[in-house]
Amino acid sequence: MPRTATGESSLARAVRIIAAFTPEETSLRVSEIARRTGLHIATASRLVAELTAHGLLDRGPDREVRIGVRLWELAARASPTLSLRDAALPYLEDVHAVVGHHAQLGVLDGADVLFLERLSARDAVINYTRIAGRLPLHLSSSGQVLLAHGPPELQERVLQGPLQRYTAATITTPEALRAALAEVRRRGYALTAGHVHEDATGVAVPVRGALNEVVAALSVIVPNDGHAEARVPVLMAAARGISRSLAAARPPA
Amino acid sequence: MPRTATGESSLARAVRIIAAFTPEETSLRVSEIARRTGLHIATASRLVAELTAHGLLDRGPDREVRIGVRLWELAARASPTLSLRDAALPYLEDVHAVVGHHAQLGVLDGADVLFLERLSARDAVINYTRIAGRLPLHLSSSGQVLLAHGPPELQERVLQGPLQRYTAATITTPEALRAALAEVRRRGYALTAGHVHEDATGVAVPVRGALNEVVAALSVIVPNDGHAEARVPVLMAAARGISRSLAAARPPA
Repeated sequence: MPRTATGESSLARAVRIIAAFTPEETSLRVSEIARRTGLHIATASRLVAELTAHGLLDRGPDREVRIGVRLWELAARASPTLSLRDAALPYLEDVHAVVGHHAQLGVLDGADVLFLERLSARDAVINYTRIAGRLPLHLSSSGQVLLAHGPPELQERVLQGPLQRYTAATITTPEALRAALAEVRRRGYALTAGHVHEDATGVAVPVRGALNEVVAALSVIVPNDGHAEARVPVLMAAARGISRSLAAARPPA
Repeated sequence: MPRTATGESSLARAVRIIAAFTPEETSLRVSEIARRTGLHIATASRLVAELTAHGLLDRGPDREVRIGVRLWELAARASPTLSLRDAALPYLEDVHAVVGHHAQLGVLDGADVLFLERLSARDAVINYTRIAGRLPLHLSSSGQVLLAHGPPELQERVLQGPLQRYTAATITTPEALRAALAEVRRRGYALTAGHVHEDATGVAVPVRGALNEVVAALSVIVPNDGHAEARVPVLMAAARGISRSLAAARPPA
Protein backbone atom coordinates (compact mmCIF):
# COMPACT_ATOMS: atom_id res chain seq x y z
CA MET A 1 0.00 0.00 0.00
CA PRO A 2 1.51 3.38 -0.92
CA ARG A 3 2.57 5.59 1.96
CA THR A 4 0.68 8.61 0.76
CA ALA A 5 -1.97 7.23 -1.52
CA THR A 6 -4.00 9.78 -3.40
CA GLY A 7 -7.50 8.50 -3.94
CA GLU A 8 -7.15 5.96 -1.09
CA SER A 9 -10.47 5.96 0.72
CA SER A 10 -10.89 7.19 4.28
CA LEU A 11 -11.97 3.64 5.08
CA ALA A 12 -8.66 2.16 3.90
CA ARG A 13 -6.75 4.73 5.93
CA ALA A 14 -8.92 4.06 8.98
CA VAL A 15 -8.13 0.34 8.75
CA ARG A 16 -4.42 1.17 8.68
CA ILE A 17 -4.81 3.31 11.79
CA ILE A 18 -6.69 0.59 13.69
CA ALA A 19 -4.08 -1.99 12.63
CA ALA A 20 -1.31 0.21 14.07
CA PHE A 21 -2.29 -0.86 17.60
CA THR A 22 -0.73 -4.09 18.86
CA PRO A 23 -0.96 -6.20 22.03
CA GLU A 24 2.36 -4.64 23.13
CA GLU A 25 1.29 -1.09 22.32
CA THR A 26 -2.36 -0.58 23.08
CA SER A 27 -2.07 3.19 23.40
CA LEU A 28 -0.40 5.53 20.90
CA ARG A 29 -0.01 9.25 20.32
CA VAL A 30 -1.30 10.70 17.04
CA SER A 31 2.27 11.48 15.93
CA GLU A 32 3.20 7.82 16.42
CA ILE A 33 0.07 6.70 14.53
CA ALA A 34 1.06 9.00 11.65
CA ARG A 35 4.58 7.57 11.65
CA ARG A 36 3.40 3.94 11.65
CA THR A 37 0.76 4.38 8.97
CA GLY A 38 2.75 6.73 6.72
CA LEU A 39 -0.15 9.20 6.85
CA HIS A 40 0.37 12.94 7.10
CA ILE A 41 -0.15 14.04 10.70
CA ALA A 42 -3.09 16.26 9.72
CA THR A 43 -4.77 13.31 7.96
CA ALA A 44 -4.06 10.99 10.88
CA SER A 45 -5.39 13.58 13.31
CA ARG A 46 -8.61 14.08 11.32
CA LEU A 47 -9.22 10.33 10.98
CA VAL A 48 -8.47 9.68 14.66
CA ALA A 49 -11.04 12.36 15.50
CA GLU A 50 -13.62 10.73 13.22
CA LEU A 51 -12.91 7.22 14.55
CA THR A 52 -13.15 8.57 18.10
CA ALA A 53 -16.50 10.22 17.28
CA HIS A 54 -17.77 6.77 16.19
CA GLY A 55 -16.36 5.19 19.39
CA LEU A 56 -14.02 2.96 17.38
CA LEU A 57 -11.07 4.68 19.02
CA ASP A 58 -10.95 6.26 22.44
CA ARG A 59 -8.87 9.23 23.53
CA GLY A 60 -7.91 9.49 27.20
CA PRO A 61 -7.17 12.57 29.27
CA ASP A 62 -3.47 11.88 28.53
CA ARG A 63 -4.22 12.49 24.80
CA GLU A 64 -3.15 8.90 24.10
CA VAL A 65 -5.35 7.02 21.63
CA ARG A 66 -6.65 3.49 22.28
CA ILE A 67 -8.95 0.97 20.60
CA GLY A 68 -12.53 1.87 21.55
CA VAL A 69 -14.82 -0.53 23.36
CA ARG A 70 -17.40 0.10 20.61
CA LEU A 71 -15.10 -1.49 18.02
CA TRP A 72 -14.81 -4.62 20.14
CA GLU A 73 -18.58 -4.62 20.64
CA LEU A 74 -19.36 -4.37 16.91
CA ALA A 75 -16.81 -7.06 16.11
CA ALA A 76 -17.80 -9.42 18.91
CA ARG A 77 -21.59 -9.25 19.05
CA ALA A 78 -22.19 -10.62 15.55
CA SER A 79 -18.91 -12.51 15.16
CA PRO A 80 -19.32 -15.85 13.39
CA THR A 81 -16.70 -17.24 15.80
CA LEU A 82 -18.73 -16.34 18.90
CA SER A 83 -20.92 -19.45 18.71
CA LEU A 84 -17.83 -21.65 18.29
CA ARG A 85 -16.11 -19.95 21.20
CA ASP A 86 -19.27 -20.21 23.35
CA ALA A 87 -19.63 -23.90 22.57
CA ALA A 88 -15.95 -24.52 23.26
CA LEU A 89 -15.40 -22.54 26.45
CA PRO A 90 -16.86 -25.04 28.98
CA TYR A 91 -14.77 -27.86 27.45
CA LEU A 92 -11.73 -25.62 27.29
CA GLU A 93 -12.20 -24.97 31.02
CA ASP A 94 -12.42 -28.72 31.66
CA VAL A 95 -9.23 -29.41 29.71
CA HIS A 96 -7.50 -26.56 31.47
CA ALA A 97 -8.62 -27.79 34.90
CA VAL A 98 -7.38 -31.33 34.19
CA VAL A 99 -4.18 -30.66 32.23
CA GLY A 100 -3.15 -27.25 33.63
CA HIS A 101 -0.66 -25.01 31.78
CA HIS A 102 -2.33 -23.54 28.65
CA ALA A 103 -5.49 -24.65 26.84
CA GLN A 104 -6.44 -22.86 23.65
CA LEU A 105 -8.80 -22.75 20.71
CA GLY A 106 -7.58 -21.70 17.26
CA VAL A 107 -9.11 -21.30 13.82
CA LEU A 108 -7.69 -21.11 10.32
CA ASP A 109 -7.40 -17.57 8.95
CA GLY A 110 -5.37 -17.04 5.81
CA ALA A 111 -2.08 -18.88 6.24
CA ASP A 112 -2.15 -18.57 10.04
CA VAL A 113 -3.82 -20.07 13.04
CA LEU A 114 -5.71 -17.32 14.86
CA PHE A 115 -6.27 -18.01 18.57
CA LEU A 116 -9.81 -17.21 19.70
CA GLU A 117 -9.36 -18.18 23.32
CA ARG A 118 -6.64 -19.16 25.74
CA LEU A 119 -6.81 -20.22 29.38
CA SER A 120 -3.52 -20.15 31.26
CA ALA A 121 -2.26 -21.16 34.67
CA ARG A 122 0.08 -18.83 36.52
CA ASP A 123 2.92 -21.36 36.71
CA ALA A 124 2.41 -22.65 33.18
CA VAL A 125 5.18 -23.51 30.75
CA ILE A 126 6.19 -20.72 28.34
CA ASN A 127 3.75 -20.08 25.49
CA TYR A 128 3.88 -17.63 22.60
CA THR A 129 0.19 -17.64 21.75
CA ARG A 130 -2.30 -15.10 23.05
CA ILE A 131 -5.94 -14.22 22.44
CA ALA A 132 -6.31 -12.75 18.94
CA GLY A 133 -2.69 -13.72 18.30
CA ARG A 134 -1.45 -15.59 15.23
CA LEU A 135 1.16 -18.23 14.42
CA PRO A 136 2.15 -19.59 10.99
CA LEU A 137 0.51 -22.92 10.14
CA HIS A 138 3.63 -25.09 9.87
CA LEU A 139 4.85 -24.13 13.31
CA SER A 140 2.47 -25.19 16.05
CA SER A 141 0.36 -28.25 16.77
CA SER A 142 -2.84 -26.22 16.19
CA GLY A 143 -1.53 -24.98 12.86
CA GLN A 144 -0.60 -28.47 11.73
CA VAL A 145 -4.08 -29.79 12.60
CA LEU A 146 -5.76 -26.97 10.67
CA LEU A 147 -3.39 -27.30 7.72
CA ALA A 148 -3.67 -31.11 7.59
CA HIS A 149 -7.45 -30.75 7.19
CA GLY A 150 -7.33 -27.52 5.18
CA PRO A 151 -7.84 -26.92 1.46
CA PRO A 152 -5.21 -28.67 -0.75
CA GLU A 153 -4.27 -25.36 -2.43
CA LEU A 154 -3.47 -23.86 0.99
CA GLN A 155 -1.31 -26.90 1.82
CA GLU A 156 0.60 -26.48 -1.45
CA ARG A 157 1.10 -22.78 -0.83
CA VAL A 158 2.44 -23.36 2.71
CA LEU A 159 4.60 -26.28 1.53
CA GLN A 160 6.26 -23.96 -0.99
CA GLY A 161 7.52 -22.01 2.03
CA PRO A 162 9.28 -20.17 3.41
CA LEU A 163 8.94 -22.22 6.60
CA GLN A 164 10.32 -20.02 9.35
CA ARG A 165 12.54 -21.68 11.96
CA TYR A 166 11.86 -20.95 15.67
CA THR A 167 13.94 -23.75 17.25
CA ALA A 168 16.13 -26.64 16.15
CA ALA A 169 12.99 -28.83 16.19
CA THR A 170 10.84 -26.60 13.93
CA ILE A 171 9.78 -28.26 10.67
CA THR A 172 11.39 -26.25 7.89
CA THR A 173 11.40 -28.56 4.84
CA PRO A 174 8.42 -29.35 2.58
CA GLU A 175 9.15 -33.10 2.82
CA ALA A 176 9.10 -33.12 6.62
CA LEU A 177 5.94 -30.96 6.73
CA ARG A 178 4.16 -33.17 4.19
CA ALA A 179 5.01 -36.25 6.28
CA ALA A 180 3.89 -34.49 9.48
CA LEU A 181 0.51 -33.53 7.95
CA ALA A 182 -0.06 -37.12 6.79
CA GLU A 183 0.78 -38.31 10.30
CA VAL A 184 -1.67 -35.80 11.82
CA ARG A 185 -4.46 -37.11 9.57
CA ARG A 186 -3.54 -40.75 10.35
CA ARG A 187 -3.22 -40.37 14.14
CA GLY A 188 -5.98 -37.78 14.58
CA TYR A 189 -3.78 -35.32 16.50
CA ALA A 190 -0.65 -33.19 16.17
CA LEU A 191 2.22 -33.20 18.65
CA THR A 192 5.01 -30.63 18.28
CA ALA A 193 7.75 -31.12 20.88
CA GLY A 194 9.88 -27.98 21.13
CA HIS A 195 8.88 -26.65 17.69
CA VAL A 196 7.88 -23.17 18.91
CA HIS A 197 9.94 -23.01 22.12
CA GLU A 198 12.41 -25.63 23.31
CA ASP A 199 10.72 -26.03 26.69
CA ALA A 200 7.16 -26.47 25.42
CA THR A 201 5.20 -29.16 23.61
CA GLY A 202 1.95 -28.50 21.80
CA VAL A 203 -0.75 -31.16 21.42
CA ALA A 204 -3.75 -30.37 19.21
CA VAL A 205 -6.83 -32.18 17.95
CA PRO A 206 -9.40 -31.15 15.33
CA VAL A 207 -12.85 -29.85 16.33
CA ARG A 208 -15.48 -30.81 13.78
CA GLY A 209 -18.65 -28.97 12.75
CA ALA A 210 -22.08 -30.23 11.77
CA LEU A 211 -20.87 -31.48 8.37
CA ASN A 212 -17.84 -33.24 9.92
CA GLU A 213 -15.62 -30.46 8.56
CA VAL A 214 -12.76 -29.26 10.77
CA VAL A 215 -13.72 -25.85 12.18
CA ALA A 216 -11.05 -25.36 14.84
CA ALA A 217 -8.10 -26.85 16.69
CA LEU A 218 -8.24 -27.54 20.42
CA SER A 219 -4.79 -27.66 22.00
CA VAL A 220 -2.73 -27.67 25.15
CA ILE A 221 0.80 -26.40 25.66
CA VAL A 222 2.63 -28.54 28.24
CA PRO A 223 6.27 -29.06 29.29
CA ASN A 224 8.57 -30.71 26.77
CA ASP A 225 9.14 -33.74 29.02
CA GLY A 226 8.09 -36.64 26.79
CA HIS A 227 4.71 -37.09 28.53
CA ALA A 228 2.61 -34.89 26.24
CA GLU A 229 0.99 -37.79 24.36
CA ALA A 230 -0.90 -38.76 27.52
CA ARG A 231 -2.96 -35.56 27.05
CA VAL A 232 -4.44 -36.70 23.73
CA PRO A 233 -7.49 -38.58 25.10
CA VAL A 234 -8.78 -35.68 27.21
CA LEU A 235 -8.40 -33.37 24.20
CA MET A 236 -10.22 -35.79 21.91
CA ALA A 237 -13.08 -36.22 24.36
CA ALA A 238 -13.38 -32.45 24.78
CA ALA A 239 -13.35 -31.90 20.99
CA ARG A 240 -16.23 -34.36 20.65
CA GLY A 241 -18.14 -32.46 23.33
CA ILE A 242 -17.63 -29.17 21.49
CA SER A 243 -18.88 -30.74 18.25
CA ARG A 244 -21.99 -31.96 20.06
CA SER A 245 -22.62 -28.48 21.48
CA LEU A 246 -22.17 -26.94 18.02
CA ALA A 247 -24.69 -29.38 16.57
CA ALA A 248 -27.18 -28.68 19.40
CA ALA A 249 -26.80 -24.89 19.17
CA ARG A 250 -29.24 -23.21 16.82
CA PRO A 251 -29.39 -19.48 16.31
CA PRO A 252 -32.28 -17.98 18.30
CA ALA A 253 -35.43 -17.57 16.20
CA MET B 1 -27.83 10.52 10.68
CA PRO B 2 -29.50 11.34 7.33
CA ARG B 3 -30.57 8.36 5.25
CA THR B 4 -28.71 9.50 2.14
CA ALA B 5 -26.03 11.81 3.40
CA THR B 6 -24.09 13.68 0.77
CA GLY B 7 -20.58 14.32 1.91
CA GLU B 8 -20.78 11.57 4.54
CA SER B 9 -17.41 9.81 4.54
CA SER B 10 -16.96 6.23 3.42
CA LEU B 11 -15.81 5.55 6.97
CA ALA B 12 -19.09 6.73 8.49
CA ARG B 13 -21.02 4.58 6.00
CA ALA B 14 -18.79 1.60 6.73
CA VAL B 15 -19.52 1.92 10.46
CA ARG B 16 -23.25 1.92 9.67
CA ILE B 17 -22.83 -1.26 7.63
CA ILE B 18 -20.88 -3.04 10.37
CA ALA B 19 -23.46 -1.93 12.96
CA ALA B 20 -26.25 -3.50 10.84
CA PHE B 21 -25.19 -6.97 12.02
CA THR B 22 -26.67 -8.14 15.31
CA PRO B 23 -26.37 -11.23 17.52
CA GLU B 24 -29.68 -12.41 16.04
CA GLU B 25 -28.69 -11.75 12.44
CA THR B 26 -25.02 -12.46 11.91
CA SER B 27 -25.38 -12.90 8.14
CA LEU B 28 -27.12 -10.50 5.76
CA ARG B 29 -27.58 -10.05 2.03
CA VAL B 30 -26.37 -6.79 0.47
CA SER B 31 -29.97 -5.77 -0.30
CA GLU B 32 -30.83 -6.16 3.39
CA ILE B 33 -27.72 -4.19 4.40
CA ALA B 34 -28.81 -1.39 2.04
CA ARG B 35 -32.30 -1.42 3.52
CA ARG B 36 -31.07 -1.28 7.12
CA THR B 37 -28.48 1.43 6.57
CA GLY B 38 -30.52 3.58 4.19
CA LEU B 39 -27.69 3.42 1.67
CA HIS B 40 -28.26 3.04 -2.06
CA ILE B 41 -27.69 -0.57 -3.05
CA ALA B 42 -24.80 0.38 -5.35
CA THR B 43 -23.11 2.26 -2.48
CA ALA B 44 -23.73 -0.60 -0.05
CA SER B 45 -22.39 -3.08 -2.59
CA ARG B 46 -19.22 -1.07 -3.20
CA LEU B 47 -18.56 -0.60 0.53
CA VAL B 48 -19.23 -4.27 1.30
CA ALA B 49 -16.67 -5.15 -1.39
CA GLU B 50 -14.13 -2.76 0.12
CA LEU B 51 -14.76 -4.00 3.68
CA THR B 52 -14.46 -7.59 2.42
CA ALA B 53 -11.16 -6.78 0.71
CA HIS B 54 -9.85 -5.57 4.11
CA GLY B 55 -11.17 -8.72 5.81
CA LEU B 56 -13.52 -6.70 8.01
CA LEU B 57 -16.47 -8.44 6.39
CA ASP B 58 -16.55 -11.92 4.91
CA ARG B 59 -18.66 -13.11 2.01
CA GLY B 60 -19.57 -16.80 1.90
CA PRO B 61 -20.30 -18.98 -1.11
CA ASP B 62 -24.01 -18.30 -0.38
CA ARG B 63 -23.34 -14.57 -1.12
CA GLU B 64 -24.35 -13.77 2.45
CA VAL B 65 -22.18 -11.20 4.22
CA ARG B 66 -20.81 -11.72 7.73
CA ILE B 67 -18.49 -9.94 10.17
CA GLY B 68 -14.91 -10.87 9.25
CA VAL B 69 -12.56 -12.58 11.67
CA ARG B 70 -10.02 -9.81 10.94
CA LEU B 71 -12.34 -7.20 12.46
CA TRP B 72 -12.56 -9.22 15.67
CA GLU B 73 -8.78 -9.67 15.65
CA LEU B 74 -8.08 -5.94 15.25
CA ALA B 75 -10.59 -5.07 17.94
CA ALA B 76 -9.52 -7.79 20.39
CA ARG B 77 -5.75 -7.89 20.17
CA ALA B 78 -5.18 -4.33 21.40
CA SER B 79 -8.42 -3.92 23.32
CA PRO B 80 -7.99 -2.05 26.59
CA THR B 81 -10.56 -4.44 28.09
CA LEU B 82 -8.53 -7.57 27.27
CA SER B 83 -6.29 -7.27 30.32
CA LEU B 84 -9.34 -6.79 32.56
CA ARG B 85 -11.09 -9.75 30.98
CA ASP B 86 -7.93 -11.89 31.26
CA ALA B 87 -7.51 -10.99 34.93
CA ALA B 88 -11.19 -11.65 35.63
CA LEU B 89 -11.76 -14.92 33.75
CA PRO B 90 -10.27 -17.34 36.32
CA TYR B 91 -12.33 -15.72 39.11
CA LEU B 92 -15.40 -15.65 36.91
CA GLU B 93 -14.93 -19.40 36.39
CA ASP B 94 -14.66 -19.91 40.16
CA VAL B 95 -17.85 -17.93 40.80
CA HIS B 96 -19.62 -19.77 38.03
CA ALA B 97 -18.48 -23.15 39.36
CA VAL B 98 -19.67 -22.34 42.90
CA VAL B 99 -22.89 -20.39 42.19
CA GLY B 100 -23.96 -21.91 38.84
CA HIS B 101 -26.46 -20.12 36.56
CA HIS B 102 -24.80 -17.05 34.98
CA ALA B 103 -21.65 -15.21 36.00
CA GLN B 104 -20.70 -12.08 34.10
CA LEU B 105 -18.35 -9.17 33.86
CA GLY B 106 -19.59 -5.76 32.70
CA VAL B 107 -18.05 -2.34 32.16
CA LEU B 108 -19.48 1.15 31.86
CA ASP B 109 -19.82 2.38 28.28
CA GLY B 110 -21.85 5.54 27.67
CA ALA B 111 -25.12 5.15 29.57
CA ASP B 112 -25.05 1.35 29.39
CA VAL B 113 -23.37 -1.59 30.97
CA LEU B 114 -21.52 -3.53 28.27
CA PHE B 115 -20.94 -7.19 29.09
CA LEU B 116 -17.41 -8.35 28.27
CA GLU B 117 -17.86 -11.94 29.36
CA ARG B 118 -20.57 -14.31 30.45
CA LEU B 119 -20.37 -17.90 31.65
CA SER B 120 -23.66 -19.77 31.66
CA ALA B 121 -24.92 -23.14 32.79
CA ARG B 122 -27.29 -25.06 30.53
CA ASP B 123 -30.10 -25.17 33.09
CA ALA B 124 -29.57 -21.59 34.28
CA VAL B 125 -32.33 -19.14 35.11
CA ILE B 126 -33.37 -16.82 32.28
CA ASN B 127 -30.93 -14.00 31.51
CA TYR B 128 -31.08 -11.20 28.95
CA THR B 129 -27.39 -10.39 28.89
CA ARG B 130 -24.94 -11.79 26.40
CA ILE B 131 -21.32 -11.23 25.45
CA ALA B 132 -20.97 -7.77 23.85
CA GLY B 133 -24.59 -7.11 24.85
CA ARG B 134 -25.80 -3.96 26.62
CA LEU B 135 -28.36 -3.02 29.25
CA PRO B 136 -29.32 0.45 30.49
CA LEU B 137 -27.63 1.42 33.77
CA HIS B 138 -30.72 1.79 35.96
CA LEU B 139 -31.96 -1.68 35.16
CA SER B 140 -29.58 -4.40 36.26
CA SER B 141 -27.42 -5.01 39.33
CA SER B 142 -24.26 -4.52 37.24
CA GLY B 143 -25.57 -1.23 35.89
CA GLN B 144 -26.46 0.03 39.37
CA VAL B 145 -22.97 -0.80 40.67
CA LEU B 146 -21.31 1.01 37.75
CA LEU B 147 -23.67 3.99 38.01
CA ALA B 148 -23.34 4.25 41.81
CA HIS B 149 -19.56 4.62 41.39
CA GLY B 150 -19.73 6.51 38.08
CA PRO B 151 -19.21 10.22 37.36
CA PRO B 152 -21.79 12.49 39.06
CA GLU B 153 -22.77 14.05 35.71
CA LEU B 154 -23.61 10.59 34.35
CA GLN B 155 -25.73 9.87 37.43
CA GLU B 156 -27.62 13.14 36.92
CA ARG B 157 -28.18 12.38 33.25
CA VAL B 158 -29.52 8.88 33.98
CA LEU B 159 -31.65 10.15 36.89
CA GLN B 160 -33.32 12.61 34.49
CA GLY B 161 -34.64 9.54 32.67
CA PRO B 162 -36.41 8.09 30.89
CA LEU B 163 -36.05 4.98 33.05
CA GLN B 164 -37.47 2.16 30.97
CA ARG B 165 -39.68 -0.39 32.74
CA TYR B 166 -39.02 -4.11 32.13
CA THR B 167 -41.06 -5.60 35.01
CA ALA B 168 -43.20 -4.39 37.89
CA ALA B 169 -40.04 -4.36 40.04
CA THR B 170 -37.93 -2.18 37.71
CA ILE B 171 -36.84 1.11 39.26
CA THR B 172 -38.46 3.84 37.16
CA THR B 173 -38.44 6.97 39.35
CA PRO B 174 -35.43 9.24 40.04
CA GLU B 175 -36.12 9.13 43.79
CA ALA B 176 -36.06 5.33 43.93
CA LEU B 177 -32.94 5.14 41.76
CA ARG B 178 -31.13 7.76 43.87
CA ALA B 179 -31.93 5.78 47.01
CA ALA B 180 -30.86 2.52 45.36
CA LEU B 181 -27.50 3.98 44.31
CA ALA B 182 -26.86 5.28 47.83
CA GLU B 183 -27.68 1.82 49.17
CA VAL B 184 -25.29 0.20 46.66
CA ARG B 185 -22.47 2.47 47.87
CA ARG B 186 -23.33 1.83 51.54
CA ARG B 187 -23.66 -1.99 51.30
CA GLY B 188 -20.96 -2.53 48.68
CA TYR B 189 -23.19 -4.52 46.33
CA ALA B 190 -26.34 -4.25 44.23
CA LEU B 191 -29.22 -6.71 44.35
CA THR B 192 -32.04 -6.43 41.82
CA ALA B 193 -34.78 -9.01 42.42
CA GLY B 194 -36.94 -9.34 39.32
CA HIS B 195 -35.96 -5.95 37.86
CA VAL B 196 -35.02 -7.31 34.40
CA HIS B 197 -37.07 -10.50 34.39
CA GLU B 198 -39.52 -11.59 37.08
CA ASP B 199 -37.83 -14.96 37.56
CA ALA B 200 -34.26 -13.70 37.91
CA THR B 201 -32.26 -11.81 40.52
CA GLY B 202 -29.00 -10.03 39.77
CA VAL B 203 -26.29 -9.56 42.38
CA ALA B 204 -23.30 -7.39 41.48
CA VAL B 205 -20.20 -6.08 43.21
CA PRO B 206 -17.63 -3.50 42.06
CA VAL B 207 -14.21 -4.55 40.74
CA ARG B 208 -11.55 -1.96 41.58
CA GLY B 209 -8.42 -1.02 39.65
CA ALA B 210 -4.97 0.00 40.84
CA LEU B 211 -6.16 3.46 41.98
CA ASN B 212 -9.15 1.96 43.84
CA GLU B 213 -11.41 3.24 41.04
CA VAL B 214 -14.30 1.00 39.95
CA VAL B 215 -13.38 -0.53 36.58
CA ALA B 216 -16.07 -3.21 36.22
CA ALA B 217 -19.00 -5.01 37.81
CA LEU B 218 -18.86 -8.71 38.62
CA SER B 219 -22.30 -10.27 38.85
CA VAL B 220 -24.35 -13.42 38.99
CA ILE B 221 -27.90 -13.97 37.78
CA VAL B 222 -29.72 -16.46 40.02
CA PRO B 223 -33.34 -17.50 40.61
CA ASN B 224 -35.62 -14.91 42.21
CA ASP B 225 -36.15 -17.05 45.32
CA GLY B 226 -35.05 -14.72 48.13
CA HIS B 227 -31.67 -16.44 48.61
CA ALA B 228 -29.62 -14.23 46.29
CA GLU B 229 -27.96 -12.26 49.11
CA ALA B 230 -26.06 -15.39 50.17
CA ARG B 231 -24.03 -15.03 46.93
CA VAL B 232 -22.53 -11.68 47.94
CA PRO B 233 -19.45 -13.00 49.85
CA VAL B 234 -18.21 -15.21 46.99
CA LEU B 235 -18.62 -12.29 44.59
CA MET B 236 -16.76 -9.91 46.90
CA ALA B 237 -13.90 -12.35 47.37
CA ALA B 238 -13.64 -12.91 43.61
CA ALA B 239 -13.68 -9.15 42.93
CA ARG B 240 -10.76 -8.72 45.35
CA GLY B 241 -8.88 -11.47 43.51
CA ILE B 242 -9.44 -9.73 40.17
CA SER B 243 -8.16 -6.44 41.62
CA ARG B 244 -5.04 -8.22 42.88
CA SER B 245 -4.46 -9.75 39.43
CA LEU B 246 -4.93 -6.36 37.79
CA ALA B 247 -2.38 -4.81 40.14
CA ALA B 248 0.11 -7.63 39.50
CA ALA B 249 -0.32 -7.53 35.71
CA ARG B 250 2.08 -5.21 33.95
CA PRO B 251 2.10 -4.82 30.17
CA PRO B 252 4.98 -6.82 28.66
CA ALA B 253 8.09 -4.68 28.07
